Amino acid sequence: MKKIVIASDSYKGTMSSLEVCDIVKAGILNIFHEAQVVSIPIADGGEGTVDAFLSAVGGEKINVKVKGPFFEVIESYYGILVDKKTAVIEMAAASGLPLAGENKNPLITTTYGTGQLILDALEKGCTKIIIGVGGSATNDGGIGMAAALGVRFSDKEGNNVSYDGNGMGKIHTIDMKDLDNRIKNCNIEVACDVDNPLYGKEGAAYIYAPQKGADEEMVKVLDDNLRLYASKVKEYLNLDVQLLEGAGAAGGLGAGLVAFLGAKLRSGIDIVLDNANFENEIKDADLIITGEGKIDSQSVRGKVPIGVAKRSKKYNVPVMAIVGWIDDDIDSVYDMGINSIFSINRKPEDFSVSKEYSKINLLKTVEDIMRLIKIV
Amino acid sequence: MKKIVIASDSYKGTMSSLEVCDIVKAGILNIFHEAQVVSIPIADGGEGTVDAFLSAVGGEKINVKVKGPFFEVIESYYGILVDKKTAVIEMAAASGLPLAGENKNPLITTTYGTGQLILDALEKGCTKIIIGVGGSATNDGGIGMAAALGVRFSDKEGNNVSYDGNGMGKIHTIDMKDLDNRIKNCNIEVACDVDNPLYGKEGAAYIYAPQKGADEEMVKVLDDNLRLYASKVKEYLNLDVQLLEGAGAAGGLGAGLVAFLGAKLRSGIDIVLDNANFENEIKDADLIITGEGKIDSQSVRGKVPIGVAKRSKKYNVPVMAIVGWIDDDIDSVYDMGINSIFSINRKPEDFSVSKEYSKINLLKTVEDIMRLIKIV
Repeated sequence: MKKIVIASDSYKGTMSSLEVCDIVKAGILNIFHEAQVVSIPIADGGEGTVDAFLSAVGGEKINVKVKGPFFEVIESYYGILVDKKTAVIEMAAASGLPLAGENKNPLITTTYGTGQLILDALEKGCTKIIIGVGGSATNDGGIGMAAALGVRFSDKEGNNVSYDGNGMGKIHTIDMKDLDNRIKNCNIEVACDVDNPLYGKEGAAYIYAPQKGADEEMVKVLDDNLRLYASKVKEYLNLDVQLLEGAGAAGGLGAGLVAFLGAKLRSGIDIVLDNANFENEIKDADLIITGEGKIDSQSVRGKVPIGVAKRSKKYNVPVMAIVGWIDDDIDSVYDMGINSIFSINRKPEDFSVSKEYSKINLLKTVEDIMRLIKIV
Repeated sequence: MKKIVIASDSYKGTMSSLEVCDIVKAGILNIFHEAQVVSIPIADGGEGTVDAFLSAVGGEKINVKVKGPFFEVIESYYGILVDKKTAVIEMAAASGLPLAGENKNPLITTTYGTGQLILDALEKGCTKIIIGVGGSATNDGGIGMAAALGVRFSDKEGNNVSYDGNGMGKIHTIDMKDLDNRIKNCNIEVACDVDNPLYGKEGAAYIYAPQKGADEEMVKVLDDNLRLYASKVKEYLNLDVQLLEGAGAAGGLGAGLVAFLGAKLRSGIDIVLDNANFENEIKDADLIITGEGKIDSQSVRGKVPIGVAKRSKKYNVPVMAIVGWIDDDIDSVYDMGINSIFSINRKPEDFSVSKEYSKINLLKTVEDIMRLIKIV
């Protein structure tokens, strides 16, 4: 083993992708002391996305004061990658659920701070922005974000609406003329792994608002507001965001990013692999190690190991997965190009017990795999 | 992988060594269709020892009527290996705990039937006998076994003692003159993996009699009887069986086999590996797979994987272990020559759940290991 590329998701509930990659790397080097190991922790768009990107690609963390979910001033951050032109923003760092705490309420929370993060990146000269939209506290359709960048949303009386779930329902006119004009020279990619439409039974409000603090009544109001908002976007921008897969991501922030900033929604894994120069790295690799908490038949639908396998196939580099749980009936996973799968469970222990040892179990499993590779 | 040798112990509580070897073989052949696979299920001396030997070496099962633990007539069996000269006997098939059922009582159970199995093997011309002594219901010092082969144990009045735990305490004289004289031309090996002395706090009665149905009082009587028995053996055969490691195996049957039949106590793994021609088989092997239910720091004390590793070392063939449980602190196991260890636990599940799936988990784990070997 001269060169191994690690590209792993997090193990939900026990380890971030960054931790997984660090441990796998340590295990490899414990056995193959001279190996070249490239670590690409796969960000999932939520908390930790900036750190994962900075680790995978290199770059700098920027600290900045913006408005939080309730328009209060908070300390936030984003990343600028080593090329100095690409910013990585996690919306959760400005508008995330943990920031809302006990008072979570999607009628009154805003993505305004996320827009301020974008603005800061533009001011630092970034021409490419990657936005992770996981973990939002909001259901404002992205109007807060857009407002921070100059878009004006007015009610019937010509006053600005509030930039939240309530305000969305009061929009009468949308005015794009003050949108920051650096946006049109900026390439914006949204890491989005959900395909929910903006409104309706599968939309942002019905599916995600309850976990953001909405009761049944509130869900209906939010869904109505999203529907009205979509009609206004259609009226003023001639764009039917409801037809867009993923428009409902992050309480409709997906729709707002596409409509106002011309962003593209892409799967997180593709964005990371492109930016980390994955295909170039694997060309001369002997092995690729991927992983996630649980590998199952759903894994074939765009999750990390399959995304890694798809790209590895064309360079004919073998791919193995190390995971916390190997589900039954995963033949399709092998068919998609994962050559071999190992779990980290060294003892027959329930997850409630084993989760305490996941890091050491992962390390030891990697070492045993490397020892096996060494002897055959 | 052109040739793989499997030499595995059972997984206590879920799979016999025969089942483990069959499943591992199937998993190998599912991936390496053309591989030569040699299976050596390692008998542990208890129930299943005959089947394991017949599978590892080849041979025939012999059915024979003998006396059970209570001198009742039972259907029993032993094996004659393919050389027609070597018999494999498990004492449990004639004098085992399951045969004693609800009435287990080491004061009145006998190894007489085990002696009859030996006699039958002699009559069929066997000149080598391998005896597994696991799972006994008895604590008779092996006098039942010896009596069946002609040794006479008399009390003060010159009458035969009863051939059980009680009778052992009434021995006044031992007379060897009617011992079947084919014994002296027969090489007898006892598969014995315990090192208990005959009597005392670590002896047969104190350590093993309780599980055979003895209460505290009975244990004391049995221990006294074993002590007296040892003094009589010393008096008549000039042999101090108490000094013998393993004399306390199977309620003192270990001592009896050595004293009256000149048997040798050896570790079960060594006996199996010798008889299965292990060292010859591994000379041209690419990989050796061993295993047991749980691998731990105790595994270095003569258990199967270490026995396999020790012999494999001199031919420089790599050894991997597949197990149900990898304990912490097993560095010593690697030091002893196990190159790599994998567990069959594909999900974080408690043993109470996972034991239902151990066979399929083993199969799938072997397949993934083989797939990994195939790609690297």
